[in-house]
Amino acid sequence: MTKHKIKFLPYDREIEVSEEQTVIRAALEAGVHVNASCGGGGQCGKCRIIVESGEIEGGTSERLNREDLEKGYRLACICRAKSDLVVRVPIESEIDPRMLKKFETSRQAARVRQVNFEDLKSRGLIIPPVEKKYLELPPPTTVENLADSSRVIKFLKTHHNEHRLVFWLAVLRKLPDVIRQADFKITATIVRPVFDDGKNQITNVEPGDTTSRNFTIAVDIGTTTIYGQVINLGTGQILAEQGDYNAQIAFGEDVISRLIHAEKPGGLDELHGALVKTINGIIRNITAEAGVREDEVSSITFAGNTTLSQILIGATPAYIRRSPYVPVTTLYPPIRAIDLGLDLAPHANALLYPSVSSWVGGDIVAGVMGSGIYRSSKLSLYIDIGTNAEIVIGNKDWLACAACSAGPAFEGGGIEFGMRAAEGAIEDFSINPRTLEPMYLTVANAKPRGICGSGLINIVANLFETGIIDNLGRFDRELKSARLRDRDGIYEYVLAWKNDAGIDRDIVLTEIDIENLIRAKAAIFSGCQTLLGEVGLGIRDLDRIILAGGFGSHVDILRAMTIGLLPEIDPARVTYIGNGSLMGARMSALTNRIRKDVVEVLKKMTNFELSETLSFMDRYMAALFLPHTDLDLFSGVKARLNSRIAR
Amino acid sequence: MTKHKIKFLPYDREIEVSEEQTVIRAALEAGVHVNASCGGGGQCGKCRIIVESGEIEGGTSERLNREDLEKGYRLACICRAKSDLVVRVPIESEIDPRMLKKFETSRQAARVRQVNFEDLKSRGLIIPPVEKKYLELPPPTTVENLADSSRVIKFLKTHHNEHRLVFWLAVLRKLPDVIRQADFKITATIVRPVFDDGKNQITNVEPGDTTSRNFTIAVDIGTTTIYGQVINLGTGQILAEQGDYNAQIAFGEDVISRLIHAEKPGGLDELHGALVKTINGIIRNITAEAGVREDEVSSITFAGNTTLSQILIGATPAYIRRSPYVPVTTLYPPIRAIDLGLDLAPHANALLYPSVSSWVGGDIVAGVMGSGIYRSSKLSLYIDIGTNAEIVIGNKDWLACAACSAGPAFEGGGIEFGMRAAEGAIEDFSINPRTLEPMYLTVANAKPRGICGSGLINIVANLFETGIIDNLGRFDRELKSARLRDRDGIYEYVLAWKNDAGIDRDIVLTEIDIENLIRAKAAIFSGCQTLLGEVGLGIRDLDRIILAGGFGSHVDILRAMTIGLLPEIDPARVTYIGNGSLMGARMSALTNRIRKDVVEVLKKMTNFELSETLSFMDRYMAALFLPHTDLDLFSGVKARLNSRIAR
Repeated sequence: MTKHKIKFLPYDREIEVSEEQTVIRAALEAGVHVNASCGGGGQCGKCRIIVESGEIEGGTSERLNREDLEKGYRLACICRAKSDLVVRVPIESEIDPRMLKKFETSRQAARVRQVNFEDLKSRGLIIPPVEKKYLELPPPTTVENLADSSRVIKFLKTHHNEHRLVFWLAVLRKLPDVIRQADFKITATIVRPVFDDGKNQITNVEPGDTTSRNFTIAVDIGTTTIYGQVINLGTGQILAEQGDYNAQIAFGEDVISRLIHAEKPGGLDELHGALVKTINGIIRNITAEAGVREDEVSSITFAGNTTLSQILIGATPAYIRRSPYVPVTTLYPPIRAIDLGLDLAPHANALLYPSVSSWVGGDIVAGVMGSGIYRSSKLSLYIDIGTNAEIVIGNKDWLACAACSAGPAFEGGGIEFGMRAAEGAIEDFSINPRTLEPMYLTVANAKPRGICGSGLINIVANLFETGIIDNLGRFDRELKSARLRDRDGIYEYVLAWKNDAGIDRDIVLTEIDIENLIRAKAAIFSGCQTLLGEVGLGIRDLDRIILAGGFGSHVDILRAMTIGLLPEIDPARVTYIGNGSLMGARMSALTNRIRKDVVEVLKKMTNFELSETLSFMDRYMAALFLPHTDLDLFSGVKARLNSRIAR
Repeated sequence: MTKHKIKFLPYDREIEVSEEQTVIRAALEAGVHVNASCGGGGQCGKCRIIVESGEIEGGTSERLNREDLEKGYRLACICRAKSDLVVRVPIESEIDPRMLKKFETSRQAARVRQVNFEDLKSRGLIIPPVEKKYLELPPPTTVENLADSSRVIKFLKTHHNEHRLVFWLAVLRKLPDVIRQADFKITATIVRPVFDDGKNQITNVEPGDTTSRNFTIAVDIGTTTIYGQVINLGTGQILAEQGDYNAQIAFGEDVISRLIHAEKPGGLDELHGALVKTINGIIRNITAEAGVREDEVSSITFAGNTTLSQILIGATPAYIRRSPYVPVTTLYPPIRAIDLGLDLAPHANALLYPSVSSWVGGDIVAGVMGSGIYRSSKLSLYIDIGTNAEIVIGNKDWLACAACSAGPAFEGGGIEFGMRAAEGAIEDFSINPRTLEPMYLTVANAKPRGICGSGLINIVANLFETGIIDNLGRFDRELKSARLRDRDGIYEYVLAWKNDAGIDRDIVLTEIDIENLIRAKAAIFSGCQTLLGEVGLGIRDLDRIILAGGFGSHVDILRAMTIGLLPEIDPARVTYIGNGSLMGARMSALTNRIRKDVVEVLKKMTNFELSETLSFMDRYMAALFLPHTDLDLFSGVKARLNSRIAR
């Protein structure tokens, strides 16, 4: 990936970006404001820059006349660097560039961390849960006429040092014919026990040598989206993956509405059916894409929240919704995939990640396992923000977890123009503190349609750092701009005028939206504080933060700290693991080490029902400010705010 | 049961019998011949006796005129003793009663041995495989909101010292509702592992206290007949039992024809369906009779031959029939009853007795377990004669077994008038050596319709001991009697004339019948010799004989020794355990001790394919005589034969 340096004038700020990156995204990452109001698709024509040196590709548009082009003007959102560049951002003449520079905060995304199968293997952490063994059996004679199953077991003992073997009924049913049709050359599938005292189960026999065809599927069951991966059990390689909307959405968008539906007559069956239909669709697609037959899939591993896991096994989640919030189980027994209604072979095993409580589910436990925080001596905060937010804090000695009643603000819930990170969602934002003109980029550079979670954080953080809103989230009534207005008694900022928008209205952010965001972030932050407080620690003791969930990939860490969502620590110690639930599912699918560890982890994980924890409410109230009542917890933000006094 | 003594004159023989016994059966048991040719129903009028003293009930008939009655004549088959009696058997004037006395051999049935549950319990041999525990759980609170399954497990650990517990999926599915509908007072069904390192499985939960409603079913799957018992798991008491014909008979009477049918397209399914239909019918009947609901049945245990066991689990028995006679398995994995197609609850476990080989099946292993020969230091011969004959020889240190190709002679196969022990089957027999007039009794005292296995042995033994046939089974051509005749070149003895018979023909025993019987008994006896010979022992080393199978109950042990079927040992050391297969199934149903032992027993049991054992054929040839070429093996028979020379 070719990289080039771009220097932005008059900010005198330089950033290295890849050739694929648009110049406007580079500007945003560098913390350089360029007015932009169409989302990045070259339509508003506002993001004009002057190329002072270097070679660029693109950037011309009918929005620029010949004179502009001759002067070196280009549209930043549709041009890319082909060499090192120096570009100048034209600013309004009345503005002092030195002032603008005070508001620079370069975009800081979390470092992405992924599982390295080969590394795990070399460290002895891969203990295959399912293996195939090719056996060239001696045929029976009149002198040695062992039963077929005994023949297989004896051979495995003698030649493969396999013990404690037991056949599945379905295997016995086909064994005599398979063994003879294949002239006594067969492949046996052996499912390993997680603990040494368990049995090695022979779950399948196939004619010939099929040892290279041994696959597993990992599935993250989310309330909104379900992701599946088909993985080679021998190499750990992901062969295909797909996400699809959970068909349960037809019965309600959030967990609560699913829980309510589950209690209606036939509701549980409907929800189970919709879930299984979605999963079966994904299985069909990813196996087809990977060229894997369904009967070559030996196992499937699920990670999902407690409600969805219970629906998957067909157990009523009725008592999850009401205090004292009791799930049916935390550990799931071994299950045959077909007993869940899955379109897999009878020999396929299904594993469900255990959950901690009704509101800290298998998805979070999977994330803990995938992130490895339970093996580290460092004090980590694991945070998964999705439809709800769950947090885990701890290290190899202890783990505390809680579900925060953050609500779905980060997925667009409770925000007037909130939306998921779909096409047209404003995800990046900057504001000119003088003119209040916005710079925003949208998902897929489409015309803006709303605001996604990371966009919301970026907008509010920018508004706060530029003093446009105060620490209660209220707009400065003194500011005069068409973009700031009172609508029916509620103050709001116009992000995109109707003409620029991909919808038929002005897109705005209201004070009520900001209040909702503050409540959401306060629930999460005070949740972290409460967990730490319950073990006698504080925010300052945190060594690192691990972000999980689709949300984490785009969030600007510093902005998230600015609004007080994330505790303020060195950004280099914040990592992003993507879909932690899926990562954990994949790891459990690949090694029994994780399955064994998870039982211990579960014993260590103390669940806190925050609503039942006395200290929580005080901490929550104190967190209902930007970034927090106690500014000493956010010294970096404090410093940035202080520098702004110069304005 | 009131008993009386009956003295028979002129034989001067006394026997004590119960009041319910007919005088003619008493005579047979005492070894006293009374002509009788209608089977015991009072129709031929031949079994006249004179009551010399004592009080009798019945015995009058239109076959006796006033004069007869006044003289004290009665029909022995329809009268019973009401006090001690002296009766005289009128004999033909030309016969010296002293001669007749030489042929007396009192009937010697095997001592019946049955399992005593209380005795086993007191000896610590009852380790319940399935128990119910009543739990009054503390309801969850906001402070303690464990998952439902964790609540049950914690309570079982704390209050019942239960560990290594795991829930079945089906239980998790209903647990939340059951637990709350029952106000947290529930009964859990716990299935124990056979070995200590296994898991205790929670297979069911029920509202309230159902601990007293815990039942099991034991089933003997026979080729011809299937027997089932419903048993109280707490007390070991048999509450109801029933036998029914195996509906597979529609596809063939013997195992071979079933094996052939199984290989036809759809044949296995048909056989499985018929078997399951019969078993379900029995389950329905015995549970109804015992007042047990089907969902109160926690487990079901099967013992059957290898072919039927494989058909039950749905595995093709195709390779059992052909050399090298390979079954699919010897040990069966744990199976849910519903996975076999049984009409039981999803929580019911099915256990199949392991088999040793294709032709020594679970029925025989069950008999070994039921009889306890594997725990004894005595050298025992266990012999089960049914559609085929299987033998086991050994003690606590070693066990050898074999299936003898005896054929179905003892169930009537290969015998012109052979039949099963059904109504009208001649089961007891004696002959007047001078007149060759028979005395026979039939099952249900009906008119004779044929000869059952025990009848066949009694007839041939009598014919041999009275010199009517020689040691090759050939009739003495010198004897003149209408009952002895040559039909189309084949000699035969007329047991019942058409007029006396319940069928439209004379009932005869031919020399070919006798040859077939000799072949059958030779196969069994030489099988015993071979097993003993292979471990360096001989017939004389046998300490005891245990008979099993329906056949064993009526067989006259001494007669069976006379023809050389059973090795000659002290008759007091021959016991009859009835349906050994069913007994073993019942014991396994009641205690894990047996299930644990059986794994060790199986390792000890050496199977011999007699047809592949070199020494067998010589021994077989030597046994094709009555009782055997080597008369020294039958010193008692030899003595009886020698006494006959006086004739």
